[in-house]
Amino acid sequence: MATDQLSVTFAALADPTRRAILARLAQGEATVTELAEPFSLSLPAVSKHLKVLQYAGLVTQGRRAQWRPCRIEPAPLQEVAAWMEEYRQVWDESWDRLDTYLKEMQVKEEHRRSAP
Amino acid sequence: MATDQLSVTFAALADPTRRAILARLAQGEATVTELAEPFSLSLPAVSKHLKVLQYAGLVTQGRRAQWRPCRIEPAPLQEVAAWMEEYRQVWDESWDRLDTYLKEMQVKEEHRRSAP
Repeated sequence: MATDQLSVTFAALADPTRRAILARLAQGEATVTELAEPFSLSLPAVSKHLKVLQYAGLVTQGRRAQWRPCRIEPAPLQEVAAWMEEYRQVWDESWDRLDTYLKEMQVKEEHRRSAP
Repeated sequence: MATDQLSVTFAALADPTRRAILARLAQGEATVTELAEPFSLSLPAVSKHLKVLQYAGLVTQGRRAQWRPCRIEPAPLQEVAAWMEEYRQVWDESWDRLDTYLKEMQVKEEHRRSAP
């Protein structure tokens, strides 16, 4: 199993419940109990998912005695965004090449039509 | 194991060799042999990684008899980008809120200073 940060992040995101937990935390802090409610999950089940998210650094949990809210951490998601950005450039380049090609075809077509 | 498209895509991306294969294919089509070379991997090992990428729809392989090039497919990555975009908005909103707060503080400070 890969242990580099990006692989750990992707593995943590490869579960719909964990992504739903992140979506909830994106709205604001929540306790484990609050997170469990909408998913009809047991507290141990939510804790297990939270451990995976915490290991990836996607979620941190406060240390105050009674109130230990979970919080989303943007850093690993920003790393994913940076990784995605390289592919966005590849797509943009392929669109640019297509655009250049189509413009060249248009110029050739205009030359052909204006030829005697 | 989750089987929704986004989970399958994230699971496929959770490996540095598979991401390196995608990065190579982002430069252009390549055969399995060409993909194996830079990674010092056996052909079966590369084929195994390719199967995971193909299952996620990230890679397709041509069907021409001798020359069966692998090609990157942008659709699953675009789905990841769309998912990321929701979180980008959350960050932007939190930055906007901070910005609004700082501007309000500035206005209050100016009022305080201009008060007699």
